[in-house]
Amino acid sequence: MTSLPERRPAADPGDLLSRRQEVLGQAYRLFYQTPVAPVRAVGVEIFEANGNRILDAYNNVPIVGHCHPRVLEAQCRQAAILNTHTRYLTEPVVRYAEKLLRTMDDHLGRAMFTCTGSEAIDLALRIARMSGRPQGVVVSSNAYHGITALAASVTPSLGPAWRQEPWVRTVEIPREVEDHRRGEAFAHRVQEAIDELQRTEFGFSALLIDMALASDGLWLEPAGWLGMACQMAQEAGGIVIADEVQAGFCRTGAYFWGHQFHDVEPDLVVMGKSMANGLPVGGVVGRPELVDGFGEQGRYFNTYGGNPVCMAAAEAVLDVIEEEALLSHAGDVGRTLQCGLRGLAGDHGSWVRVRGVGLFAAMEFLTTAGEGDSAASSRALNAFRDAGVLVGQCGPGNTAIKIRPPLPFSRENVEELLDVTRAVLEADSRD
Amino acid sequence: MTSLPERRPAADPGDLLSRRQEVLGQAYRLFYQTPVAPVRAVGVEIFEANGNRILDAYNNVPIVGHCHPRVLEAQCRQAAILNTHTRYLTEPVVRYAEKLLRTMDDHLGRAMFTCTGSEAIDLALRIARMSGRPQGVVVSSNAYHGITALAASVTPSLGPAWRQEPWVRTVEIPREVEDHRRGEAFAHRVQEAIDELQRTEFGFSALLIDMALASDGLWLEPAGWLGMACQMAQEAGGIVIADEVQAGFCRTGAYFWGHQFHDVEPDLVVMGKSMANGLPVGGVVGRPELVDGFGEQGRYFNTYGGNPVCMAAAEAVLDVIEEEALLSHAGDVGRTLQCGLRGLAGDHGSWVRVRGVGLFAAMEFLTTAGEGDSAASSRALNAFRDAGVLVGQCGPGNTAIKIRPPLPFSRENVEELLDVTRAVLEADSRD
Repeated sequence: MTSLPERRPAADPGDLLSRRQEVLGQAYRLFYQTPVAPVRAVGVEIFEANGNRILDAYNNVPIVGHCHPRVLEAQCRQAAILNTHTRYLTEPVVRYAEKLLRTMDDHLGRAMFTCTGSEAIDLALRIARMSGRPQGVVVSSNAYHGITALAASVTPSLGPAWRQEPWVRTVEIPREVEDHRRGEAFAHRVQEAIDELQRTEFGFSALLIDMALASDGLWLEPAGWLGMACQMAQEAGGIVIADEVQAGFCRTGAYFWGHQFHDVEPDLVVMGKSMANGLPVGGVVGRPELVDGFGEQGRYFNTYGGNPVCMAAAEAVLDVIEEEALLSHAGDVGRTLQCGLRGLAGDHGSWVRVRGVGLFAAMEFLTTAGEGDSAASSRALNAFRDAGVLVGQCGPGNTAIKIRPPLPFSRENVEELLDVTRAVLEADSRD
Repeated sequence: MTSLPERRPAADPGDLLSRRQEVLGQAYRLFYQTPVAPVRAVGVEIFEANGNRILDAYNNVPIVGHCHPRVLEAQCRQAAILNTHTRYLTEPVVRYAEKLLRTMDDHLGRAMFTCTGSEAIDLALRIARMSGRPQGVVVSSNAYHGITALAASVTPSLGPAWRQEPWVRTVEIPREVEDHRRGEAFAHRVQEAIDELQRTEFGFSALLIDMALASDGLWLEPAGWLGMACQMAQEAGGIVIADEVQAGFCRTGAYFWGHQFHDVEPDLVVMGKSMANGLPVGGVVGRPELVDGFGEQGRYFNTYGGNPVCMAAAEAVLDVIEEEALLSHAGDVGRTLQCGLRGLAGDHGSWVRVRGVGLFAAMEFLTTAGEGDSAASSRALNAFRDAGVLVGQCGPGNTAIKIRPPLPFSRENVEELLDVTRAVLEADSRD
């Protein structure tokens, strides 16, 4: 049995937790039984006040690494000279839009900027409605698309507290089929949902789909499997809205965007989190006719959206990705990660199942009856944290561990992660 | 007749406009017939590439002045060491929430952070719904509350392109009554709207109201006039949501918040724009039972909301406001501004009407028939810009010029603004 690496204990955050509860209240939840109290972070490492070092295998917001000096320099240089809005002519938003659009197919010719992925989802759905299409939207059955009222309406993973709108239909991922049949099985279910919507007053407007299906448990493979469902949605007169908040920005290590991994031609692409390494930026990229049609009919002005400081940071992220060759890096290191995780899962019998591509992996825990095991996943989550590695959870019932580190995660970081994974699995082994 | 001060011509932005149209498309509009192309800004001054200097009498986002060194230092220092989210324990969000809450009455005990004012409005309306109240909302008839789908639903000023929901009722400001009767007349109209909603399936949930009624043409005076309507809403079982995006942050020069100016006890307070001098921050402050009730029932996690970098900037804004005594400054300089504008309006007969308090003023243009004059207002808007002063527009049909400078606007800045105002009015005079 591998022992967990030696490390300092978690820092004692003092009265910070009680002060926080006093002013932020019940809506603010914390990860882990022993919350993380970071005071400093660099690259893929986070430090607590007592010097406790934690490996970050979870956060995709600092996509090029925490506190990357190039991004820092760009945003501070811009903040020192000008920060204003898009009712004036400024260079940074235009230059960033040009660079961003160059990462995509030519048919995606317009960009609009928001401050969050939720705002971007909200905007994309408004653009869909303004296009003259009806109202019905199809989403995956445990999707997470955000927290504005409209985004929450298409987010079944928020649970029953936020009511599902009658114009939303959910489609479950076909889990128990062979990989090469999943695409067809899913497309069939999507078609059923579309047909059903078209028999109602709502009609069918859009298939909104996370290109990694992360919240559904991470269903990336096989490459291209989402293509058929998307094509069917478009043939039915709807648009495809690709949610790239998690799948985008080189996460798969194969393509810049998840829709490219799936060979999908989306009509609108929604992005967030990773865009500016931590400053609030979200965006919608889409077909000119859709975006311009919306713009001509209504006013949309996002005060902070596209501001020069956030755009400078976002542009630096694109530059760093290119200069540090982070796409091929994510592919190379990701292969080691994926092989390693699958090897460990194989060592531990049939109660762990690994999915994923590149630097995005899910490790699902199963009960002896073959059901998702939330308790085992939660035990593992906290064991990772106690061993100094941050991971998350995903899937219906949070039955899986989610691994989604900043892109500069190195081969040594992967080895460390695999060592800890081995120890976590062995400590909780059923043998 | 005063001549306009000598100045450089507006800068030629080269191909920036055409590049912008190519990538951002039709949704992105620009202010002014000759768009402003800023490359640098400091304090209340904006500069174009050719050195053309423009006085900023419009922007409330850089509330303590463009590129304030104290805010810049705080955000860059924090960005160099840590930027992460609120699922971990970090000090900056807690310390900022504590400081922010100290600017308000004790009954407003909880803070939640978003990235924009629109997200904050959206969240406030979700909190209202989760409180077990029905759905109906009353807003002013030309209100602007934001651009998420839900915020747009309660924003009649967006026009017919975004449909009004059946659970929204609008109430017009009583323009043609004496100042001391306006509060009662408005409360009467609000009560009618509440009664009407209560006869429908929607019921009455909330009065959502901009404490400056800026988009309705700026109706701040007399202090306290909104109190009766808010009290009636609360007596009818609804909550009062105070939109402080424009009225807050010392804008009136009399109180930190607009609701304090009106002696209103709001249940929820929504803020945005000015919070972090340009970094994307919005927020909702409210009664603990409302905020906690929402938090207990549902998940709400805003990835970038409350991040340490934005919070560091926001805290620096509060510190600068205190250290530079900007509240009393806005009161002092604001009196000069308000007196000066009223004097100029008096000189120009009955076709200009001035409203406002502190560093917030509207100058409404009227036709000879006494109707709002959009054309005259638009001519004035562009004349100001051509004379090197940025102002905006407000009111139904944009019949008024809106003056809302950063708080460090000096007495000399006021004199310059008044000189330009005199010239603009004389150039367009009907005498």
